[in-house]
Amino acid sequence: MSNDTFPNGAAWIKGEVVPIEQAAIGVTDWAVTHSDVTYDVVPVWDGAFFRLNDYLGRFEASMRAYRMDVGMDRSQIASALHDMVARSGLKQAYVAMVAARGTPRIAGSRDPRDCDNHFYAWCVPYIHVVKPEVAAAGVSLYIPDNVHRIPDQSLNQRVKNYHWGDFTAALFQAKDNGFESALLTDGHGNLAEGPGFNVFAIFGDKVVTPAQHVLHGITRRTALELCRENGFETEERALPLSELMEADEMFLTSSGGGIFPVARVNAHHFSNGAAGPKATQLRAAYYERLKQPGFRTEITY
Amino acid sequence: MSNDTFPNGAAWIKGEVVPIEQAAIGVTDWAVTHSDVTYDVVPVWDGAFFRLNDYLGRFEASMRAYRMDVGMDRSQIASALHDMVARSGLKQAYVAMVAARGTPRIAGSRDPRDCDNHFYAWCVPYIHVVKPEVAAAGVSLYIPDNVHRIPDQSLNQRVKNYHWGDFTAALFQAKDNGFESALLTDGHGNLAEGPGFNVFAIFGDKVVTPAQHVLHGITRRTALELCRENGFETEERALPLSELMEADEMFLTSSGGGIFPVARVNAHHFSNGAAGPKATQLRAAYYERLKQPGFRTEITY
Repeated sequence: MSNDTFPNGAAWIKGEVVPIEQAAIGVTDWAVTHSDVTYDVVPVWDGAFFRLNDYLGRFEASMRAYRMDVGMDRSQIASALHDMVARSGLKQAYVAMVAARGTPRIAGSRDPRDCDNHFYAWCVPYIHVVKPEVAAAGVSLYIPDNVHRIPDQSLNQRVKNYHWGDFTAALFQAKDNGFESALLTDGHGNLAEGPGFNVFAIFGDKVVTPAQHVLHGITRRTALELCRENGFETEERALPLSELMEADEMFLTSSGGGIFPVARVNAHHFSNGAAGPKATQLRAAYYERLKQPGFRTEITY
Repeated sequence: MSNDTFPNGAAWIKGEVVPIEQAAIGVTDWAVTHSDVTYDVVPVWDGAFFRLNDYLGRFEASMRAYRMDVGMDRSQIASALHDMVARSGLKQAYVAMVAARGTPRIAGSRDPRDCDNHFYAWCVPYIHVVKPEVAAAGVSLYIPDNVHRIPDQSLNQRVKNYHWGDFTAALFQAKDNGFESALLTDGHGNLAEGPGFNVFAIFGDKVVTPAQHVLHGITRRTALELCRENGFETEERALPLSELMEADEMFLTSSGGGIFPVARVNAHHFSNGAAGPKATQLRAAYYERLKQPGFRTEITY
């Protein structure tokens, strides 16, 4: 391994790969002051990107939705990500690609069309949205009754974004009450999503996941595929909290760790308060999928 | 004037005053990745802060609401702002104070309680949210029918925040349609606020401004005081769009420029499509208030 590996992570900014500690963004960039940014996160597993083209495709769709042009095509973005991860030396990584609105070319302009958009990326050692030992036992989730997911009518949640104020308020309540993480509803009795993950409920051989006010995650997509391959029917639709409480099992999906069985939501226990067998099986199937050549883009370190 | 003035602006970061171009924040700070940040903006006019203690008081309330502790008391924050503006040399300035969540002390933690919060500040030449020449003629505002203000149930809008995705989507529509700025409703027929400003409607000798899903701006407060001093009754309550259309005049308030008469909302003209006389009078009263010693904290350059 060469000397210029970065065990804490690396970033690609303005064409340069730098250690993660040196990666910074201007305090007046609208990415900061307006959270005017979209991003995506692709996992690197055993030295390869997983489903890289799917993540890049969604990232491009997000940039189009936000009317951002960072002046780089898919192959240039892929090349930047590859060079950055290769230089970092990380074999298991969480890789973020970011499109930022930037600042106006015309001083004082309040017109987003006047901004110079730009791309940057960063990678750090692989992040599990829930620690593996917690996932094995089943996750506990807290649904607050006074915080609801920012609705699609205010912010298109299919565009991956950094507007996490609702999640942060919910996480404080979850942590104060001894739960691992939080889950938000749409304020009308239906489940939405949690901080960094989609949610699924298993009813016999049927799996249901919410369709609105949520990111259509790539791991959500992987999970839907794995469910169908394993004989489940899948439904993407409104999932009322009252219906969730009748589920046999529940699980989460995230690019930060795959599929996580849920043992508890508020006072309600699933699978007798443990990780359910079907969700545990799907979790294993996800880790198998990470190894399948058709889904991998190998990195040359 | 000394050599170390910064005509483009300055920042206070980690105890140092630097030129604004050098002020940056780490790309993994939750202030960026979760927009987990609160801030306030105090104007500097003719070499003095305006209502500094009111702005500092609201900033402290915002930090309490977000459970942030930046390890600085009010006098230390005031001192940092003073030193920064004095070093910049700016006599008319837009001064931002920011509290950021920071990053977790424990690598990989998803618990906001594990983060080291921090303070930074920056100042740039005075920003008018609407250019003075546009304000004199009356502002035009576009209300989109498919984007609504992020509701208080998702994000407490009385805490000043950088969650501007709804505003940005609305601004694109406003600019594409030839309007100066945008205005959002709550999705239930009531007005909320626009990007960087509160809204008011004048009916005879009565003035109404929305109470919910909006920042309770300091300039909003100044405007309410000026209205009462000028013989208006004031009401803070839900303001339906249908009622707004019956108003004699309409105006905006912002720390970036004070009070702005509105000439047009979508196809509806106020005051025959010009700046209304009462709003224009209130605008002048605001600039008088900026000069009153009781509201000013002089800066020693």
